[in-house]
Amino acid sequence: MGMNEKTLSIFALGGINEIGKNMYVIQYSDDIFIIDCGGKFPDESLLGIDLIIPDITYLEENQDKIRALLVTHGHEDHIGGIPYFLKKLNIPIYATNFTLGLIEIKLDEHRLKRDTELIIVDSNSKLEFGKVQVSFFKVSHSIPDCLGIVFHTPEGNIVHTGDFKFDLTPANNQYADIHKMAQIGEQGVLLLLSESTNAERTGLTPSERMVASHMEEAFLKADGKIFVSTFASNVNRVQQVVDAAIKTNRKLALLGRSMVNVVSVALERGYLTVPEGMIIDAFEVDQMSPEKVAILCTGSQGEQMAALSRLSSGNFRDVAIHPGDTVIMAASPIPGNEKDVSRIIDNLFQLGAKVIYGSGSTTGMHVSGHGYQEDLKLMLTLMKPTYFIPIHGEYRMLHHHRLLAESVGVEKGNTFIINNGDVVDIKNSVARQTREVPSGDTYVDGMGVGDVGEIVLRDRKQLSEDGMLVIVLTISKRERRIIQGPDTVTRGFVYVKDSENLLKDVNRIVKNTVVELQEQNVRQWNVMKQAIKKSVGQYLFTHTKRRPMILPIIIEI
Amino acid sequence: MGMNEKTLSIFALGGINEIGKNMYVIQYSDDIFIIDCGGKFPDESLLGIDLIIPDITYLEENQDKIRALLVTHGHEDHIGGIPYFLKKLNIPIYATNFTLGLIEIKLDEHRLKRDTELIIVDSNSKLEFGKVQVSFFKVSHSIPDCLGIVFHTPEGNIVHTGDFKFDLTPANNQYADIHKMAQIGEQGVLLLLSESTNAERTGLTPSERMVASHMEEAFLKADGKIFVSTFASNVNRVQQVVDAAIKTNRKLALLGRSMVNVVSVALERGYLTVPEGMIIDAFEVDQMSPEKVAILCTGSQGEQMAALSRLSSGNFRDVAIHPGDTVIMAASPIPGNEKDVSRIIDNLFQLGAKVIYGSGSTTGMHVSGHGYQEDLKLMLTLMKPTYFIPIHGEYRMLHHHRLLAESVGVEKGNTFIINNGDVVDIKNSVARQTREVPSGDTYVDGMGVGDVGEIVLRDRKQLSEDGMLVIVLTISKRERRIIQGPDTVTRGFVYVKDSENLLKDVNRIVKNTVVELQEQNVRQWNVMKQAIKKSVGQYLFTHTKRRPMILPIIIEI
Repeated sequence: MGMNEKTLSIFALGGINEIGKNMYVIQYSDDIFIIDCGGKFPDESLLGIDLIIPDITYLEENQDKIRALLVTHGHEDHIGGIPYFLKKLNIPIYATNFTLGLIEIKLDEHRLKRDTELIIVDSNSKLEFGKVQVSFFKVSHSIPDCLGIVFHTPEGNIVHTGDFKFDLTPANNQYADIHKMAQIGEQGVLLLLSESTNAERTGLTPSERMVASHMEEAFLKADGKIFVSTFASNVNRVQQVVDAAIKTNRKLALLGRSMVNVVSVALERGYLTVPEGMIIDAFEVDQMSPEKVAILCTGSQGEQMAALSRLSSGNFRDVAIHPGDTVIMAASPIPGNEKDVSRIIDNLFQLGAKVIYGSGSTTGMHVSGHGYQEDLKLMLTLMKPTYFIPIHGEYRMLHHHRLLAESVGVEKGNTFIINNGDVVDIKNSVARQTREVPSGDTYVDGMGVGDVGEIVLRDRKQLSEDGMLVIVLTISKRERRIIQGPDTVTRGFVYVKDSENLLKDVNRIVKNTVVELQEQNVRQWNVMKQAIKKSVGQYLFTHTKRRPMILPIIIEI
Repeated sequence: MGMNEKTLSIFALGGINEIGKNMYVIQYSDDIFIIDCGGKFPDESLLGIDLIIPDITYLEENQDKIRALLVTHGHEDHIGGIPYFLKKLNIPIYATNFTLGLIEIKLDEHRLKRDTELIIVDSNSKLEFGKVQVSFFKVSHSIPDCLGIVFHTPEGNIVHTGDFKFDLTPANNQYADIHKMAQIGEQGVLLLLSESTNAERTGLTPSERMVASHMEEAFLKADGKIFVSTFASNVNRVQQVVDAAIKTNRKLALLGRSMVNVVSVALERGYLTVPEGMIIDAFEVDQMSPEKVAILCTGSQGEQMAALSRLSSGNFRDVAIHPGDTVIMAASPIPGNEKDVSRIIDNLFQLGAKVIYGSGSTTGMHVSGHGYQEDLKLMLTLMKPTYFIPIHGEYRMLHHHRLLAESVGVEKGNTFIINNGDVVDIKNSVARQTREVPSGDTYVDGMGVGDVGEIVLRDRKQLSEDGMLVIVLTISKRERRIIQGPDTVTRGFVYVKDSENLLKDVNRIVKNTVVELQEQNVRQWNVMKQAIKKSVGQYLFTHTKRRPMILPIIIEI
């Protein structure tokens, strides 16, 4: 695994062929720089898993070389792995003011003492790490204070875009550093890592301002209370809700833990402007005239325990949705969440609410924070990289991003579509992809990190589909005859009372199997257990077309 | 539950507040007519369930009154429940030629003897059932031979639209009976049941012809083999693939059981025109020059065992996808299937295929078979119903459909948004919704129909998330002391080898719990089991934040 002296190496430990758990590594000789440390939410096939984080074996083995964890922005898929990372490696973290605010919320939740160095940077910061200098540029995205990063190395400059779109009319007037990007491109970019989320979508991302005007219209039209559900971290959108509420003379309540937390970080650190006295407590909502109040709430992705879901089923303490109230879904469902979001919209309509949802240029309350094809082409054009690695996307997105790069002049053969763990080495200005470092998914389940793997998940899957059947048998040590049982216990398989005959048959089959083996003088418990599993399994599949997990337990007395 | 004499009653046993398991009932006095008998695929929360069908308790209790099962068309959500229905009720089935062909495939699969009366109808058929006459009209949809149904009752006419769109240029020249619909409207419609799937979408559904021209373009551009994945039942789209293949001089192979079955029904019954000798066997594909062959395959929804999924992972016998081949996804993912479909597209790109996917007016290979808002308004306008029940949709769709009805003149208060089981009774031309019949989901799991319910599913859920822990304890009958164990067996919880200390602690806790109870002279096994569950459960949650199912088994010797 030895890195050659003075080789520049680039690889991902997460974020390639997936959306989530972003973690990229730039290594020059003995200096390692990590970009982002994200989490990823498991899909439903990973039964019981709470979070997926990157496998950081390589970093643990090379911890003396790590100089910094640089964080581009504060979204979960870029910071969600940090608490777990810090439990293993104590590395200084560099991020903008707002991003660090969100990281600190996480460290508090994990009760991690703040013995990590947290260093605030902005787009003007310049960091020196021996032979490598690091500088930054501002990009627009759906959360404040986002950075792209430039690594100035003796081999050449490496640029990581972070997540970005080009929004020429950003809602908060935080303009991206387009001139600076042009300069960086002028100075020469050896390799660009650019995000690929929307590489399949033609055109240019609409501006966040579009939402602003639709939001204002909706507020002007509404009679009753107005509920707006969005990502708490989308502070610019939160600001638009605040502004619309000011214009229509409404107070504002915040529902949901992350909404309260993030808004307070944004207020403290100056990313959100709210007039004194405008924010009210949840319990005050029902004491006010409905047309005098707006409510910002979490749960735009249909999360079962979040505020909107509880509101939609009438289970939120203090606040209720009444007929005539307006609910604005100011976020699109992330792929996989569509059904949960639809269920909530159904419930809201049933409560008599007016629900504004869906995208669309006339009423849409959401625009993407990730650049479409023309945004991506503009970044590639500004940077003019010699080499290109599309990151942050599934394979089809990386594939399309490569085609975009070629269309604006990146030479064929100079784009590397890599996998997590694949290393691109650059030496004497020539890039080659030859070797791998360890990478993969580490599962977080409750307090366990990495203790649930293939076997446990396979068992959970079998248990989830057909349940289980425990067969207990007591056998005498000497004569090896059954002295008690077989007794059966089932869970998740069939109703016992509907299945008495089935279970009687199981007992009979178990007895016969044991007797047969005894006649053949077979005495190993394992062989006996296997034989019971097989005969009972076959019987049950024939009669139910189900394959419960069969657990024979033999007690020797 | 008694129906009043000469009351006309309308209700749904499935299809309301859901997409799937459509089943509607029209009862006039003692004559019951059933419309459709669909199945519904379970979402991932229904662990292990294979299919959901309607609860037909009401029909079983009134089977002597049932005159007919009338089937509007051959989609799964309209015919999927028929085999289970027939196992309980032997009722004559009326459907068009093609629809009956698909029903017969199902009956064969279920090895149901054809002792059911299957009666072919077409849009000109007129059926007499005592005081009720039934007639039909043709509608356009994404499967051939679709009907709307008119029930002529002494109280007035009831119209059920089936699934429909207005396609003025249908791909197969099977025009919908618009003139007849206008006539029906002229004669007076007391109540309309109309489908609501796309009630949220503005505008008019694009014509199936759009796909035809895109398909032809794609075929003209392609170099290598062409794979087209679509629903087998969308015979008009299959015909377009056939036509494009003829134009470009390609032979056609069919992959996937349902593609082979449905195409053969369509050929036999004259719904598909394919030149002699054009269809080749799968094993012949690789013997031909790639530009001389096209392949129609199942699996457009990302189904794991279907042809396209196996092709995309290189696991299809006889046929392989090579770099330069074209794959056309000629169907949109149904909500919930997006991720599976995306995974397949990723794999196809990785194989080097050109993949054409996504909707869009310039390259889209799919149009919906369900009418958008303007289609729905046209139907309402043609029918001019006094009363209206939006069906076939989730609540938000029904809600929007009601607004559409009001916008074209259905009186406010005359639309009934009902639930499955809610009965609308019409007497003396006045409709009222007052009572309910039993309704609900019946789960099919393997060979069991209705034997899996809440408790079994709850257990499966717990097992799926945190696995289980069996604790076996042998206790002497007389002294009531532990003579063997506790022994623990876990599955889906933790790796045993990583958790030796945890399990040692569990054993210690079990022993302590038992000893404590014995000291208190508690002798009931149930109390002892509960105490073990509680103490072990608390310990495990504190140390792992997981809640495995704990099964204490006490053997008394």
